[in-house]
Amino acid sequence: MKIVCCFGAGPAETGPWVTELAAAMPVAQVSADALDADYAVVWRAPQAFFDRQTRLKAIFAAGAGVDALLAMRLPAGVPVIRLEDAGMGEQMAEYVVHAVLHHVRRFDAYAVLQAGRTWRPLPPQRKADWPVGILGLGVLGRAVAQALRALGFPVSGWTRTPRGEPGVHAGEAGLAPFLANTRILVDMLPLTPQTHDLIDARVFAQLKTPAYFINVARGDHVVEADLLAALDTGVLAGATLDVCRNEPARPDHPFWSHPNIVLTPHVAAMTLRHESVAQIVQKIEALERGAAVDGVVRPERGY
Amino acid sequence: MKIVCCFGAGPAETGPWVTELAAAMPVAQVSADALDADYAVVWRAPQAFFDRQTRLKAIFAAGAGVDALLAMRLPAGVPVIRLEDAGMGEQMAEYVVHAVLHHVRRFDAYAVLQAGRTWRPLPPQRKADWPVGILGLGVLGRAVAQALRALGFPVSGWTRTPRGEPGVHAGEAGLAPFLANTRILVDMLPLTPQTHDLIDARVFAQLKTPAYFINVARGDHVVEADLLAALDTGVLAGATLDVCRNEPARPDHPFWSHPNIVLTPHVAAMTLRHESVAQIVQKIEALERGAAVDGVVRPERGY
Repeated sequence: MKIVCCFGAGPAETGPWVTELAAAMPVAQVSADALDADYAVVWRAPQAFFDRQTRLKAIFAAGAGVDALLAMRLPAGVPVIRLEDAGMGEQMAEYVVHAVLHHVRRFDAYAVLQAGRTWRPLPPQRKADWPVGILGLGVLGRAVAQALRALGFPVSGWTRTPRGEPGVHAGEAGLAPFLANTRILVDMLPLTPQTHDLIDARVFAQLKTPAYFINVARGDHVVEADLLAALDTGVLAGATLDVCRNEPARPDHPFWSHPNIVLTPHVAAMTLRHESVAQIVQKIEALERGAAVDGVVRPERGY
Repeated sequence: MKIVCCFGAGPAETGPWVTELAAAMPVAQVSADALDADYAVVWRAPQAFFDRQTRLKAIFAAGAGVDALLAMRLPAGVPVIRLEDAGMGEQMAEYVVHAVLHHVRRFDAYAVLQAGRTWRPLPPQRKADWPVGILGLGVLGRAVAQALRALGFPVSGWTRTPRGEPGVHAGEAGLAPFLANTRILVDMLPLTPQTHDLIDARVFAQLKTPAYFINVARGDHVVEADLLAALDTGVLAGATLDVCRNEPARPDHPFWSHPNIVLTPHVAAMTLRHESVAQIVQKIEALERGAAVDGVVRPERGY
């Protein structure tokens, strides 16, 4: 069996994956250049990589979100398989918990007071007044919901597809009641044609205000001018953004200097090689046995 | 039965306690000025208040830490009773979880990069490399330990009195092994003659470095010049301080402007009136029945 790894950042990134996969799966020949591989493990691989592959059985995406991969011309009929969690749920939970506490416990306001050398206790805020709504309740969204509930925050969720779960709004009809009950909106959706530009002025206007927005998903979900307008009019008190439409954000992007925006460089959940390799090996072994695996992307759905 | 309330900030603070206690305990006469009260509920009451009381059965401290109260001349033989948690454990856990994530997930470093309009992902850090040590494992310290463990941080604790618990260091002999295994030191001790100035250069030097210091207890525990020196020499990478020796911190205090210090105005856990009143009513009812109550301060111990 041959496995080929291709990471857009080049050999420095690809090399350690080749080494670690080879160690974890001694029966396989793992390389960065096979043209007749059975399995590919990729992240931001170029189109030419896929054009050269002749007999792939499956493509593994080594990160969260397969929108960029699905936008390429992939070999027909070859399944794309997503990682499931692989340590990313825990990282997402840490990132979102930090952002929620940072605002609700007023560390943002206290930082301003510290800069002014002003010792002034502010009135405490009640968690009951800060219901969190999570857009997208996949494996990662559920990990975030659980961590916030453990801290005592009211949490609800929205999913595209109705699943009949209590406390989970679903579908287009469920969006309005979900937003009306949300003060901290957390974007954890996949990027699909349906979610592109989904978060706009109309969405912000439906939140309990002053609201707070956290994006750990994709910048293309958000109409950035509407986000800035919502901040300027006080609909949003602030935002923590791990993503933006064009990454890396250019130095003149208004997010950098907005006093109520925290911007981080797409680091909320980084792919953990060790956990990911273990999961990929398990899935390859299952596929070789002819067993079904979780995480197979449905291209028509987009995730 | 008469209950008197006295809060150092004056009638604006005392009034709501009188109203809420009266509503919760209709059998009692609750006021801000009785001289022959059975029970007193106080926070930062002046010496003159205690000098005038003639027949108190117990004094309730409406906050965390009784060091200031024990420094006063109190009526002889009258027990001082502390609140136990009353919503403060949850607040402390939020504050410390935020501070730990802020540093370990590098939000402090990303804020510097944001100010420089620089999109630069930093290498992720492993929680296993950030063992947290909690100095003082009372009700509040345990709440913080539990929240950090739930997030996956290695947590150990130190208490003055050995209790034979696994993973808990105790007494003077236990301090060195506790510190040697700690990279994030969280101060949650009561202020007593034994803990005054306890945290000094010698303590910082024993931590795994670069270390991080969080103080949600009392400023008098810390030799502030040693803290600043530890930051300047890189022994400490940073500190989050909710307290300092003289509060409010004066505008020229070096903590305000230190790039690696987060300073907040003693707000980590604020007394929640509703929860506190409910607990005080329960304890008064128990005392009136002749039953024992938890939280009775041992003055010789200091907490």
